[in-house]
Amino acid sequence: MKVVIIGGVATGPKVAARLRRLSPEADITVIDKGSIVSYGSCGLPLFLGNLVPKIEDLRKTSAGLVRDTQYFDGTKGIKVLTQTEALAIDRAKKKVKVRSLEKGEVWELDYDYLVLATGTKEVKPPIPGLEAQNVFTVRHLDAAAQIRDLIREKKVKHATIIGAGLIGIEVADALNSPRLKVMLCESQPRVLAKLLDPDIALLVEDKMLKRGVDLRLNCRVQKLEKDEEGKVCGVVINDEKIATDLVIVAVGGQPEVALAREAGLTIGETGAIQVNQRMQTDDPFIYAGGDCVEQINTVTGHKTFVPLASTANKQGRVIADNIAGIPSEFPAISATTAFQAFDLNVGRTGLGEAQAKELGFEVLTSISTGLDAAHFYPVHGAVTLKLIAEKATGRLLGAQVCGIGEAIKRLDVLATVLKFKGTIKDIQGLDLSYAPPFATAIDVLIHAANTWENKQKGVVETITPFELMEMLNRKENITLVDVREPEETKANPVQGANTVVIPLGELRKRYEEIPQDSHVITVCELGIRGYDAACFLQSKFPRVGFLEGGMSTWGALGYKLGK
Amino acid sequence: MKVVIIGGVATGPKVAARLRRLSPEADITVIDKGSIVSYGSCGLPLFLGNLVPKIEDLRKTSAGLVRDTQYFDGTKGIKVLTQTEALAIDRAKKKVKVRSLEKGEVWELDYDYLVLATGTKEVKPPIPGLEAQNVFTVRHLDAAAQIRDLIREKKVKHATIIGAGLIGIEVADALNSPRLKVMLCESQPRVLAKLLDPDIALLVEDKMLKRGVDLRLNCRVQKLEKDEEGKVCGVVINDEKIATDLVIVAVGGQPEVALAREAGLTIGETGAIQVNQRMQTDDPFIYAGGDCVEQINTVTGHKTFVPLASTANKQGRVIADNIAGIPSEFPAISATTAFQAFDLNVGRTGLGEAQAKELGFEVLTSISTGLDAAHFYPVHGAVTLKLIAEKATGRLLGAQVCGIGEAIKRLDVLATVLKFKGTIKDIQGLDLSYAPPFATAIDVLIHAANTWENKQKGVVETITPFELMEMLNRKENITLVDVREPEETKANPVQGANTVVIPLGELRKRYEEIPQDSHVITVCELGIRGYDAACFLQSKFPRVGFLEGGMSTWGALGYKLGK
Repeated sequence: MKVVIIGGVATGPKVAARLRRLSPEADITVIDKGSIVSYGSCGLPLFLGNLVPKIEDLRKTSAGLVRDTQYFDGTKGIKVLTQTEALAIDRAKKKVKVRSLEKGEVWELDYDYLVLATGTKEVKPPIPGLEAQNVFTVRHLDAAAQIRDLIREKKVKHATIIGAGLIGIEVADALNSPRLKVMLCESQPRVLAKLLDPDIALLVEDKMLKRGVDLRLNCRVQKLEKDEEGKVCGVVINDEKIATDLVIVAVGGQPEVALAREAGLTIGETGAIQVNQRMQTDDPFIYAGGDCVEQINTVTGHKTFVPLASTANKQGRVIADNIAGIPSEFPAISATTAFQAFDLNVGRTGLGEAQAKELGFEVLTSISTGLDAAHFYPVHGAVTLKLIAEKATGRLLGAQVCGIGEAIKRLDVLATVLKFKGTIKDIQGLDLSYAPPFATAIDVLIHAANTWENKQKGVVETITPFELMEMLNRKENITLVDVREPEETKANPVQGANTVVIPLGELRKRYEEIPQDSHVITVCELGIRGYDAACFLQSKFPRVGFLEGGMSTWGALGYKLGK
Repeated sequence: MKVVIIGGVATGPKVAARLRRLSPEADITVIDKGSIVSYGSCGLPLFLGNLVPKIEDLRKTSAGLVRDTQYFDGTKGIKVLTQTEALAIDRAKKKVKVRSLEKGEVWELDYDYLVLATGTKEVKPPIPGLEAQNVFTVRHLDAAAQIRDLIREKKVKHATIIGAGLIGIEVADALNSPRLKVMLCESQPRVLAKLLDPDIALLVEDKMLKRGVDLRLNCRVQKLEKDEEGKVCGVVINDEKIATDLVIVAVGGQPEVALAREAGLTIGETGAIQVNQRMQTDDPFIYAGGDCVEQINTVTGHKTFVPLASTANKQGRVIADNIAGIPSEFPAISATTAFQAFDLNVGRTGLGEAQAKELGFEVLTSISTGLDAAHFYPVHGAVTLKLIAEKATGRLLGAQVCGIGEAIKRLDVLATVLKFKGTIKDIQGLDLSYAPPFATAIDVLIHAANTWENKQKGVVETITPFELMEMLNRKENITLVDVREPEETKANPVQGANTVVIPLGELRKRYEEIPQDSHVITVCELGIRGYDAACFLQSKFPRVGFLEGGMSTWGALGYKLGK
């Protein structure tokens, strides 16, 4: 059995390795245009941030072996042809025409099964000047190595990153330092527009601003300028020229489908290759997987395109199984995505709030903040969770998390709940592990579900940070009641409205200090005491609510308002 | 509405706080025998290990307020009577007779609803000499404070802990230091016998032994001896006297059900109070929750008794809701339990292997080890997972985890899968988050499920560490093939059998060095390369398997064998 795999990163090597284990006699050839295969491109921002010492480390196995052609040959029994481009597929004859990029020779490879793992292709935004020196993308190892060399040689004092998606933000974190000013340009009005709802994105923006990143939202990059040596020296945004020494374009990629399209295979409405659940294209002898194919969203059942390394690897296994005769299907995805930047753990799964509403769901969301571990445990941090669920049934539709605390554990649990089409009630009843290093006795995730249920049942009115901002903009008659302890209030005062400060412990005695005729909104640090206070006050005042997430979410908005 | 709550830790305060929010007019009284309420007893080992600076820290809220009677009165509007004992319940008149332990006076409290949150009572093992000074349990703050004072005053050079359950091991970790020898005595042949299967318990034992804990299994503690001042000075185990300065009894507790039993309420077969899903006893006006009630196991549907702080808090919320008129049920539990000791993160959920077999399930288990984060990420650690599932259907029955890496995140996902009665196939298809700081591209949990499936499908023979030990004991004709890199082999050689060392990369050329007539078992560090090697070798040799978990699990057994 001859198997040809086009693409040597993630899916391709995974297909090859699994198939080799299942089928010792198969003749397996992997071809790739690049000179390097099977590297951890997800680690490039870590390399830029000096968390990965050498670029070669991203090519090594956990046992320290470099995954080069020799490794694949000796250790795995897999032939890898680098710098080899696939030109065309002859489906009738089951041949792939290939060309050596080194020597120029062209020949044909026979296949019984062909696997397309062609990944994504770079998208260059239409900005004049991109051809200047010191303008990079961070898709390949050599570009990353060049960027780090420039920084180490102290040739970069100002770096411009175009695109505030996941990679743009990871790179901004990696480069940002007292010696290197980072400007991050984003055409959308917020960061991570594809990934996060505005209220959660705001928490990331807040942290970036506090760390000194020059964040330019609603920003049109008009052109790059270069000096007489051909090096980039400036960027023109919104008609303003800003001097810069390095530009990194991080606008993402598009599925690389040219070969598939030319071979007459169906390209889906998402622009990626259409496959069935067995990862077969229209041609049963041609499989496709990884960043060049579309997936199915587990919540909606619709086609989607969310290229992720985790998906790519899982699909590789499914493809190998099917080729080896073990029937296997790749299931729907929740589009779970996570990253760490600016000391925040950030992620999402399922649908966003706007997306869910567009799809016709009647949505109720809640935002809550809690600690990832017992507060008496020496290491603990706050985590903000947003739950997006169907109002009437409580069916979970999506979730987003952000915090310096451990958030991704909770995200994975929520991705699991999505798979089983579970509800908020299911989350409340999860028997999650508790010990002081890992959680509070009521896990922050269960606390989030309780918060959502309280809101659904109308235990007390809740106000989101955005709602509060709108109320303030409309100059509504609001009294914010800050129920925190004096030192908390002093350290981080509530901004932007009439505020009465009464610590929760004194509220039962002093509540008459609050004006009777206003809309009373209680505020604390994380939202829990505010909730407690609002429950008490609603028997005393005509209209009482509490600020969801407290200062942990309002602080970010307040900071933005203050600018 | 008058509500009396008996018990001031975990469930009791939770009922009170939630009920206060739902029902501002309710008259809520909490009584407790002790002088201190609402403290984090789970944090006592952390206090002993100096991770919690002051004992008062375990009584504080996350905002730093001490949860004393004044706090409950002022902040929550809840009356708390400490040092007050409930003597009897008059169900007909709906009254509780109580006595002040300070002043001796006796009076009655009327109730509309009564909540029993009496927790567990100390079980004293029948060992003569327990009355000596410096013999403690670690259930209460004052005992923990006394223990730490003794250690700080350098009065303890040798400590004996009786009972190697969760608390015993946490305390052993807290006390163990170069200056303080800890002897841990356990009557069972292994540690954590109620919690973990022998193969996972072994990993904990291994780490404890390497840290210098004097672990005595199958150990009968016959008596304690005291000096002329009445202080404990020795412990007699298995007819040997060992000098010791401090004894901590950590044999767990039994549900405190005396009051309920005397009031004629049903005590279940587990010995704990029987409640329905609304947490009501036989008497609809008497609720019970926390460590004094039994639960339902989500896998079996049987009654069980697993006292946990997380359960206690959730039940408190359910009780408050029902009293306030919001119908609420507490669901079945997976008995998820986790702890951190000796730098290991350890936990279990669902059924253990033996338990599942006793219940008649045909069980297939797998053990696998992987990294919790990308190997190129600077902080990463190994995690061993054991999956216990029904052989034919793949339905997950239980799981156990252990490792220096992040294991508890995976445990929570598995607890979630259990709730939805999911399968190994479901786990393989979970869309878990991936980014280098959080996981490998194929999460260790999905790797574990893949390993289980490979085993079920018979891709290649697998050998568990215990199976290998038995084969060696029977002196079977085995060749262990160590396929690691030379430096790995040198650092931690395979012990206990005929071993051939051939790194995986050379195996395809050198496999003929392996004796043809023996049972070939491949070994690597975590199990992944051994699996790869076995897949290759099975086309060349009559009988080939690989060691599950590699040296990460065999090392512990080898260490034990070597003693």
